[in-house]
Amino acid sequence: MTEMRRAAFVAVGSELLRAQRLDTNSLLAARLAGNCGFSFVEKRAIEDDVEAIARAVGELAARVELVVVSGGLGPTADDVTREGVAQAFGLGIARMAALEGALEARFRRSGRTMPAIAARMADIIEGAEVLPNPQGTAPGQLLQVGGCTLVLLPGVPRELETIFATHLLPRFASAARVATRTLHLAGVYESAVEERVSHLYEKYGRERITILAGRGLVDLVLMAQGAECADVVAAMEKDFASIAGDDLFGCDRDTLPAVALAAVRLRGWRLATAESCTGGMVGAQLTTVPGASDVYVGGVVAYSNELKQTLLGIDGDAIATHGAVSREVAEAMAVGATRLGAECAIAVTGVAGPGGGTEAKPVGTVHIAVITPAGRRHVQQRFPGDRAFIRELTANVAIDQLRRALLEA
Amino acid sequence: MTEMRRAAFVAVGSELLRAQRLDTNSLLAARLAGNCGFSFVEKRAIEDDVEAIARAVGELAARVELVVVSGGLGPTADDVTREGVAQAFGLGIARMAALEGALEARFRRSGRTMPAIAARMADIIEGAEVLPNPQGTAPGQLLQVGGCTLVLLPGVPRELETIFATHLLPRFASAARVATRTLHLAGVYESAVEERVSHLYEKYGRERITILAGRGLVDLVLMAQGAECADVVAAMEKDFASIAGDDLFGCDRDTLPAVALAAVRLRGWRLATAESCTGGMVGAQLTTVPGASDVYVGGVVAYSNELKQTLLGIDGDAIATHGAVSREVAEAMAVGATRLGAECAIAVTGVAGPGGGTEAKPVGTVHIAVITPAGRRHVQQRFPGDRAFIRELTANVAIDQLRRALLEA
Repeated sequence: MTEMRRAAFVAVGSELLRAQRLDTNSLLAARLAGNCGFSFVEKRAIEDDVEAIARAVGELAARVELVVVSGGLGPTADDVTREGVAQAFGLGIARMAALEGALEARFRRSGRTMPAIAARMADIIEGAEVLPNPQGTAPGQLLQVGGCTLVLLPGVPRELETIFATHLLPRFASAARVATRTLHLAGVYESAVEERVSHLYEKYGRERITILAGRGLVDLVLMAQGAECADVVAAMEKDFASIAGDDLFGCDRDTLPAVALAAVRLRGWRLATAESCTGGMVGAQLTTVPGASDVYVGGVVAYSNELKQTLLGIDGDAIATHGAVSREVAEAMAVGATRLGAECAIAVTGVAGPGGGTEAKPVGTVHIAVITPAGRRHVQQRFPGDRAFIRELTANVAIDQLRRALLEA
Repeated sequence: MTEMRRAAFVAVGSELLRAQRLDTNSLLAARLAGNCGFSFVEKRAIEDDVEAIARAVGELAARVELVVVSGGLGPTADDVTREGVAQAFGLGIARMAALEGALEARFRRSGRTMPAIAARMADIIEGAEVLPNPQGTAPGQLLQVGGCTLVLLPGVPRELETIFATHLLPRFASAARVATRTLHLAGVYESAVEERVSHLYEKYGRERITILAGRGLVDLVLMAQGAECADVVAAMEKDFASIAGDDLFGCDRDTLPAVALAAVRLRGWRLATAESCTGGMVGAQLTTVPGASDVYVGGVVAYSNELKQTLLGIDGDAIATHGAVSREVAEAMAVGATRLGAECAIAVTGVAGPGGGTEAKPVGTVHIAVITPAGRRHVQQRFPGDRAFIRELTANVAIDQLRRALLEA
């Protein structure tokens, strides 16, 4: 396997340095650069300042093969990426008449007159190639300085992605030969996955495998390079999938709600929900999927015990005897949900905290019940973390329990 | 007003350079550093590599007064922040026997034997001050190099925040005299807010005011420095609040669901929801608030038209005549929700897309109805954006409509 080539990312924008906003373009750029055979060894966010930009690109260009700069290409006085990069390498800047004319025409087409300041977007660094921007006004620029390629892209994510995909992928990707595959697992902890796959680290190389985890979901990102990369990733996928077993629910762009709904749809069934501590999160997750309505009929947020009785038909004695957070009530909620006109149901009741915990049922205690025509499932969990974490974990595990019930069907 | 002092942030961790994960500690650190009178002029994410760490902290310490380094202080071979920082300044590292003993005792208390490798967490850079970590095992370290203070903190957010707040805020904050206030507005667009407050930029200075917007909510972050900072921020707050009027729903840690629920609670009323296109998101938002159960009884996710009829008692003819996405159906859903045992109700029906749009009711068409004993509200919106954006905007606007209805009460 060939090595990944070293790249760096610079996000220009003073607003990215405060407590309220993060650069996220670097995720997009990391994926696109990865497809070109580059991996980031450093990312920076810096101020809208000529000196700061010049220093950053100068330092990075001396030790990586690709520097991607995002932002600061617009028309306002704050937009000084062109000036900073030019200064770093002692290059001039010239206004391209043809580009200025195209900008004017673009403004005219949308019924506006181009403000004089907008002509700055036609300023091109000496020796740079113009990368047209079909999604916006400011074009990108590509510059070769010694052994380093510098790419200046607009900060608007859609524009950055389009220019990268249109102009840079074709240039780099065929030479790079990179293949990746992301396997999605549910209902497992990162540490357990790590233990199960550790012997494959030696076979394929630790640096080809990334484990990412959060809220009951674990992703295995597999990567290979070189002429055989597609075959290598296919072999890796087979090995990892066989170890993951039923914990594996999909790959790449699959999501847990979409996979679970597809399994219900496949059998011609419908699904309803009955939620207490999650307050609607299970329904909200399921309906992130476009077209969910042909499978998911809806459900009840039975936050109060009264609604558990009136809408789900749960016996008040059952609640009094076992408590609202109990296996009995979870299962009765699931039965009640099926009566809404669905063959399948997910029901959730638990103590999300911070209040409401007892010694017998501390904060984090959750009961999940699933009904399908093929069988029923119940799990009791004691989840760690705060209210938000417990609720997210509960919603994910609940949808995963439906998926597992349908695997058995 | 005194100027903010220049600081930089370095996140150590190779996993932060890939396409799947962002450093978010820098947001936490920016807020805490801001309270100490520092503002970040640069943020970096770098690899778990001694040379990379040494280069970054060396470069930054030469031109800022505070460098915050996050991560790489744990026990594993990847954790090389100590070594990198020591190398940058030609300093030695020594294992502190007292700290090693404390680590061993900590492991013993939790019934484990300390692995030999964990003793690395007792390695302290020559001349550094140990910053005890009450939340975890790896302590922080503080180092003065020339005119720069270097602070090494664990990458676990809770540990980073606790050490910063315990050891650094008292040291820096009294000298800094910084006051901030965040005003939260709902139901308005960023551009409209910007226009309304623009004359205050001149009065207080553009750099003291940050406008942040997203999904129907706008935050105004106000900041002042110097001996009079508390008075200045109070004066700013008064001016901005008077312009914001009823759009202002709270400040600092207030959230829209918490404010809306508190308004219902104040009057001794209860609240129910009836949701279609949001699929449970309104309920999920409301129940992010601890203690929501004394006000929010729950509701119905009436995703199918059948459930709109059976659970909310909506006339099938009304749906046939006006369509499920209509003022009539939204208002009937709200009436149905009050029958679940609540004086107040929020109801939502809309076309979230990508499918389901028509010429008369394109994707983004949403009807929101609110009932309270004090009066009813209805809004029809045509929201821009994709499915996820439309749904989030709808949930926020719906909860804001309840808040506005109660303002009038």
